[in-house]
Amino acid sequence: MSGFVLQTPLIPYQAPELPGGNQLWLKAENFQRTGSFKIRGAYNAIAGLSKEDRERGVITYSSGNHGQAVACAAGSLGVRAVVVMPEDAIPRKVEATRRWGAEVVFAGHTSLDRQNRAMELVQRHGYAVVPPFDDRRIIAGQGTVGLEILEQHPNIDAVIVQVGGGGLISGVATAIKAIRPHVAVIGVEPEGGADARESLENGRLVTWDSIETVADGLRTSRIGELNFATIRELVDEIVTVTDDEILRAVGILALEGSLVAEPSGAVAPAAVLFGHTGLAGKRVVAVVSGGNIDPARLRDCLDLSRNQPSVAGSDV
Amino acid sequence: MSGFVLQTPLIPYQAPELPGGNQLWLKAENFQRTGSFKIRGAYNAIAGLSKEDRERGVITYSSGNHGQAVACAAGSLGVRAVVVMPEDAIPRKVEATRRWGAEVVFAGHTSLDRQNRAMELVQRHGYAVVPPFDDRRIIAGQGTVGLEILEQHPNIDAVIVQVGGGGLISGVATAIKAIRPHVAVIGVEPEGGADARESLENGRLVTWDSIETVADGLRTSRIGELNFATIRELVDEIVTVTDDEILRAVGILALEGSLVAEPSGAVAPAAVLFGHTGLAGKRVVAVVSGGNIDPARLRDCLDLSRNQPSVAGSDV
Repeated sequence: MSGFVLQTPLIPYQAPELPGGNQLWLKAENFQRTGSFKIRGAYNAIAGLSKEDRERGVITYSSGNHGQAVACAAGSLGVRAVVVMPEDAIPRKVEATRRWGAEVVFAGHTSLDRQNRAMELVQRHGYAVVPPFDDRRIIAGQGTVGLEILEQHPNIDAVIVQVGGGGLISGVATAIKAIRPHVAVIGVEPEGGADARESLENGRLVTWDSIETVADGLRTSRIGELNFATIRELVDEIVTVTDDEILRAVGILALEGSLVAEPSGAVAPAAVLFGHTGLAGKRVVAVVSGGNIDPARLRDCLDLSRNQPSVAGSDV
Repeated sequence: MSGFVLQTPLIPYQAPELPGGNQLWLKAENFQRTGSFKIRGAYNAIAGLSKEDRERGVITYSSGNHGQAVACAAGSLGVRAVVVMPEDAIPRKVEATRRWGAEVVFAGHTSLDRQNRAMELVQRHGYAVVPPFDDRRIIAGQGTVGLEILEQHPNIDAVIVQVGGGGLISGVATAIKAIRPHVAVIGVEPEGGADARESLENGRLVTWDSIETVADGLRTSRIGELNFATIRELVDEIVTVTDDEILRAVGILALEGSLVAEPSGAVAPAAVLFGHTGLAGKRVVAVVSGGNIDPARLRDCLDLSRNQPSVAGSDV
């Protein structure tokens, strides 16, 4: 994957004091190609297709980071890509997807509309589907985040990872526990979408009918089956953060950490910044999974952090 | 210097098209300890003091990034530091300076008030002055930015550096031209403070009585003598950017680059983003010299970039 997927930096977080006296490093996937970790799995999945599958092309039905990642990875490999998006998709996202050379097909308004349209197209054209998380190739690709973390800082105590469909955390946990089994892997979900935590606690996959969170990249109503099997086996714990904490974390990361995270990307750091990991005196890595944030949203997050103490400020 | 001064990442800028078809990498000193490159020179200067000088302590009269860098570097080396700040200094900056263990002395409102007070204290206590740029130890320290760039990307064509007092660019030019003489080193100044460009064009040091720019870290009315000698010998050209371009660049870097730069830090990238370098089809590194920005200022910069096309956007 090297040469196309970028090795993103592991950035020491400089702010003075964190709850529990932990030290924090940020694995900055906001600097990854397409602005999120999703390119790792998408590239791995598409690069591994047979010659015949590649010639027919690939399809996905995500309008977000995974959709852009599939478009970009396919484009770089000379594979035709179709991305099914809602009819009311934000023009900026449509443009970004087309910019990578993908064909955009519009279908209805719901996720089901998009999946149905994608399946019709698969039937007709024989496209290979690139699923967002419940897939071994995707999980292996996302796992390279964990490999890089260990390479960049072999002596960490814990890795904190956000959980949506479970692709990132199952890959990272597989990599970390294979190489350094004593490093803790802790998942973080928004309170309004804590289906993975409930699944882990109940020992069976739980679906949440309604997900309410500002972390738009983590609005999956249940994690994948492969992902759940891995999480059950390898993840130490799943904790939650509130929407308020997520938005404050976006502001704190920008002003204290000089780094722009999207709400989903700030979920894992938020757990460390607001002391929900249960760790004390540890060397902790939190994954910033992406940086694709709406400008108005980022502004609002800066306002939230405005009255907090800050080291920001400059002049001669 | 390693172990204390951080090797900051060289981050590929992902946005699609740049003027002249150049490719851009950002040397991200906003992730440096204290949030700017200034720690490099300050640490180098203080670490090189004699045992006697260290025991007496150091002093500086900058209320900005250099002041914080001196406070932090001295603190880490167990050296007493005094930072002279204006009576109306922003409480946040005073706090940040004290947090590093420095003593803050208040003196008047002007830069001259502060220098006079510092000189009194030097007379009385024998403190060693750590000057902001016109000093070989400071220049050598800032030059490590150039060494790291060449180590991180040996095949670049040009390095773009902001010019205030000239400490950073004279260090970077010395490092770059010693190792890769064919790599261009281009300085960038705000239009409202283009004394270095005028000095270079006239072949003699020029002072600007009045500096008007939003780039508060570059409000020096003339560059240092040592710095000028180096710039004259080694820097290929100095170009300028407008305040509007600087502020837009802060917004673009945040939204397209996921990275928070202070206005001074965005000056070199702005020259590439707005096509003022005269380069075409080149691999270009621009230094982001710091990230210590006021929250309200950052908000305003996001507003400026709001109506520009952007790849930002996220969801499942």
